[in-house]
Amino acid sequence: MAVTGSVDERLTAEDAAFIRDLGNQLRVDGIRASTKAGSGHPTSSMSASDLLAVLITRHLHYDWQNPRLDNNDHLIFSKGHASPLVYALFKACGAIDDAELMTYRMHGSRLQGHPTPILPWVDVATGSLGQGMPIAVGVALAGRAVDRLPFHVWALCGDSEMAEGSIWEGLDKASHYGLSNFTAIVDVNRLGQRGPTELEWNLAAYQGRVEAFGCRALVIDGHDIEQIDDALGRARAERERPTVVLARTIKGKGFSEIEDKDGWHGKALPPDMAERAIAELGGIRDLRVDTPRPQAGDSAVCRGGAGVTISLPAYSKDDKVATRKAYGDALVAMGARADVVVLDGEVSNSTHADEFKKAYPDRFFEMFIAEQQLVAATVGMSVRHLVPFASTFAAFFSRAYDFVRMAGVSGANIRLSGSHAGCEIGADGPSQMALEDLASMRAIHTSTVLYPSDPVSTAKLVARMAETDGIVYLRTTRGAYPTLYDNDESFEVGGSKVLRRGDADTVTLIGAGVTLHTCLDAADRLGAEGIRCRVIDLYSVKPVDTATLREAVRDTGGNFVIVEDHYPQGGLAAAVLEALAGDENRPRLTHLAVRELPGSGTTAELMAAAGIDADAIVAAVRATSAAGER
Amino acid sequence: MAVTGSVDERLTAEDAAFIRDLGNQLRVDGIRASTKAGSGHPTSSMSASDLLAVLITRHLHYDWQNPRLDNNDHLIFSKGHASPLVYALFKACGAIDDAELMTYRMHGSRLQGHPTPILPWVDVATGSLGQGMPIAVGVALAGRAVDRLPFHVWALCGDSEMAEGSIWEGLDKASHYGLSNFTAIVDVNRLGQRGPTELEWNLAAYQGRVEAFGCRALVIDGHDIEQIDDALGRARAERERPTVVLARTIKGKGFSEIEDKDGWHGKALPPDMAERAIAELGGIRDLRVDTPRPQAGDSAVCRGGAGVTISLPAYSKDDKVATRKAYGDALVAMGARADVVVLDGEVSNSTHADEFKKAYPDRFFEMFIAEQQLVAATVGMSVRHLVPFASTFAAFFSRAYDFVRMAGVSGANIRLSGSHAGCEIGADGPSQMALEDLASMRAIHTSTVLYPSDPVSTAKLVARMAETDGIVYLRTTRGAYPTLYDNDESFEVGGSKVLRRGDADTVTLIGAGVTLHTCLDAADRLGAEGIRCRVIDLYSVKPVDTATLREAVRDTGGNFVIVEDHYPQGGLAAAVLEALAGDENRPRLTHLAVRELPGSGTTAELMAAAGIDADAIVAAVRATSAAGER
Repeated sequence: MAVTGSVDERLTAEDAAFIRDLGNQLRVDGIRASTKAGSGHPTSSMSASDLLAVLITRHLHYDWQNPRLDNNDHLIFSKGHASPLVYALFKACGAIDDAELMTYRMHGSRLQGHPTPILPWVDVATGSLGQGMPIAVGVALAGRAVDRLPFHVWALCGDSEMAEGSIWEGLDKASHYGLSNFTAIVDVNRLGQRGPTELEWNLAAYQGRVEAFGCRALVIDGHDIEQIDDALGRARAERERPTVVLARTIKGKGFSEIEDKDGWHGKALPPDMAERAIAELGGIRDLRVDTPRPQAGDSAVCRGGAGVTISLPAYSKDDKVATRKAYGDALVAMGARADVVVLDGEVSNSTHADEFKKAYPDRFFEMFIAEQQLVAATVGMSVRHLVPFASTFAAFFSRAYDFVRMAGVSGANIRLSGSHAGCEIGADGPSQMALEDLASMRAIHTSTVLYPSDPVSTAKLVARMAETDGIVYLRTTRGAYPTLYDNDESFEVGGSKVLRRGDADTVTLIGAGVTLHTCLDAADRLGAEGIRCRVIDLYSVKPVDTATLREAVRDTGGNFVIVEDHYPQGGLAAAVLEALAGDENRPRLTHLAVRELPGSGTTAELMAAAGIDADAIVAAVRATSAAGER
Repeated sequence: MAVTGSVDERLTAEDAAFIRDLGNQLRVDGIRASTKAGSGHPTSSMSASDLLAVLITRHLHYDWQNPRLDNNDHLIFSKGHASPLVYALFKACGAIDDAELMTYRMHGSRLQGHPTPILPWVDVATGSLGQGMPIAVGVALAGRAVDRLPFHVWALCGDSEMAEGSIWEGLDKASHYGLSNFTAIVDVNRLGQRGPTELEWNLAAYQGRVEAFGCRALVIDGHDIEQIDDALGRARAERERPTVVLARTIKGKGFSEIEDKDGWHGKALPPDMAERAIAELGGIRDLRVDTPRPQAGDSAVCRGGAGVTISLPAYSKDDKVATRKAYGDALVAMGARADVVVLDGEVSNSTHADEFKKAYPDRFFEMFIAEQQLVAATVGMSVRHLVPFASTFAAFFSRAYDFVRMAGVSGANIRLSGSHAGCEIGADGPSQMALEDLASMRAIHTSTVLYPSDPVSTAKLVARMAETDGIVYLRTTRGAYPTLYDNDESFEVGGSKVLRRGDADTVTLIGAGVTLHTCLDAADRLGAEGIRCRVIDLYSVKPVDTATLREAVRDTGGNFVIVEDHYPQGGLAAAVLEALAGDENRPRLTHLAVRELPGSGTTAELMAAAGIDADAIVAAVRATSAAGER
């Protein structure tokens, strides 16, 4: 038994009856799966079951056998804890079978506690509230402004997550970009984890907020099939604004013992209760849904991606060019790839992403001062298989750290460029200085962390970023420093460069970014005193070039000086120590890092105060050498 | 020449003339300071100068000679880049002199590029947009609900930062808690850093949003002294709701060459332009403001703080108690201190902060699912010299990482408890697992990082948290494990415990939290095979107990196995390696950590899969021992 439909057809009484049944099947299956697992969120699934039953039967245009079709709609479960519903829905659509459904939350099952993209029908991992919806906005932006495809993007939200600021960043950008191809469905079931939500069933309050943020609000009874159908149909037909369907629902709907009762969040029903619930819901069914098909026709998006020849900018050894500027130059070169898109958080004249904007205005997206949405939209672009680069001050990516974390869980492919790293920035003071970004970004699953020192290496690494999967973070520097490399030098993820090397080297200086320059200065001065230093440009902080480090341990007696414009924890030194920690021969480290809170001042003053300038390195090496001679 | 005033007195023409002059003095002084410094944001200061001139002359109740008076109003510059205005204002109020003003942005000066609390009149560091205002909401909440004092809290916001979701989290909580003692003044100057803001001068759009979020909106011309005075007077007199003054202003106001012109954000005027600007603004003045005094009377807040006797909960060695539960138990004990307040992000039944809520409902604050506001309010409580504890899942503090970073810059004293750390949580899956928190929190300036393994150590460390300045982070575990310690055992920040020790120890096992238990299991099994293990509970991850680690290096030949429920980067192992990196004798490490993305499963399954369970430790030690014997 199946019903197909679309926005053009009127909902018949027969359709409505089927959908009501389907809603209860989704409830029953969610209960069965979670009770079997012994955990999960059945009640949060039951409130949204009717909404989703209508959606998948009549409004979601999706080919479950071809989840990568470009014309498929996108359905993102921002309330990821409603995973019993997600998987019950996948079963109803024929994507998984009942046996797999019953593996919910088991080790090795694809059906994890919260949805992740190991399932081909899941775009992004959710479960950290307030993220799925802003990411869905990014998918809709890609669909509207880059792909120019007719797909619609649906996000199912919980009411608790409407308290997250990121939700409002998302709606703001959805309306700013006129994303009428985006619909959020908010399951207003009144109850959060530990009690009532802030606004409970004050639908008027939600409506006022949504409308004030420039979206159309449709307030409905989320268990009235006709109202749901009407709202979703209007949402898909909308051509001006994004739509937010505000659905008044009942948590635990359909099982009278727990309907609208506090204390049932995130709890599987015990088997006896599950049995009574299933009976009350009409027993186990096996309805199959024939979801409306996506628009036919040539849906292959031809972007001209990896095969395109890129002409990276070239620099002269006489040039002093800030790495942030080289980032902008390289972005323009990368723009030859039609799949490269760039996003920025209202600082593009500082990050130099504005160079790309000038060259490719149609593929540049201004996210204004909203870093969570900046990263969310970037993840959304990656869902559409674009190659997105996002930039802001390195310090301000910390605003979106949870989004970066979840992008790692999603296996998203995004590139982040953080400018103005370290105390090097000078007068603006510590609020603008990233001094913990190497630590935080290194600890992200799937991350690559790059920190170039000159324009040539920056440009080469920007090209590498496009080819590298996962979360690729580039740390750039405010000031302009000498060009160190020839334009034909190559730079690899996981590589390093040895800039000073000799048979008589007694100490290894390791820097990256601005501290590579202070290391080189120090090495030259020490060389004049007869102290021979090896100098390594550790531009790939993660992964790190273990072979070159091992060679340096061997050649210089493990005598390492690591210098970083970063707090002492978790940065460059930790990367080296962790890499060599199991070796028989391990370095003995002198570690120069920013140990006190910097203030304002010139770059030279602040680097001197932090003890990471050439003077400090010279003094540290002299002390080490003197100790070695004693 | 001085004008005093208050909300009760009508603004005379003479007052208005004085204030107009004062506004121009603030502009001139901001220009002088930034031109001298060669950097800064004079134009962003000039747009807000009239607003602040009215505020400090007639509505801010503040004793500049006694900035710690409890009845003083609070004034927080959420748009921290308007620091030329901040310092010009301090001069006009007699807090600093002109000579100090002219040290703006110089190395060693208190007048940094963005305001920081090294100045006694600054509550918190700002400069990361969208933070000062939510923190001000926390200060207002403390004033209303804890201090019960008549002070008013004023936040000056930029229009660009209204795009930050955190602003809306702040307004939402301000209205939820009915904080009529809170006023945000938004300087809508239409221009951001790189061009027009998203909403430009669409004051109606701002008004709609502000009102939808439950605040009173007053739309005014921000250069009309009478309108400003009326709005601020009404804001201070308001008794129901928070007020947001939406002031239409002109960037660069008062200097016709740059008024409302793009391209002048964050730029000091060159000396010749500064000269013309100062002339157009009527030259240099030396007006002094006699700010209205705070309400007299007994303003000493008697809280009963550090001196109170705390009876921590006791546990039996037979108890299996989750550390998150012990956190809740200990919070209740800490509640005997009237200055202890607790905040939670709608998961208090999971973090067990709900234990405190039951005991001290008046000092418990629900922040719902809004982690940025959770931390912001916690910082606000610390501004009021309370002892705030905030809790959510450890993974979700990543949502507020920029707030934690800035709290470090502010030197705020806050305590954060993150529950559900690591893959130990089991079935909920990776979105709920903190696996990067040790790395990110260790890298925060002023941070202390604690990770207890049993209820006794947890309770003792919660007591230590209250005594410890800075950002104190506690990592707690979902599951219940054996009680390891006697109730009279003491635990210090920077300490550790050696739980297995013998003269014949050949290897040191280091764990914390759940991995201490797997280390103990492994040590017992290895002991039965004749491999003697030292076992260290490294509950203080930062600072780390270097002396005990050194002793273990010496006693066990540097043979270390570190086991952590965390990604390999920047966590427990990095803490140990960094601490010993300069030593002559350094450990050789076998490092067991979570290297692949966990899925769902039981705790045992996931810890086995990650290779951090007792089996994995036993195998690792056997391999090490075998290698050592070869």
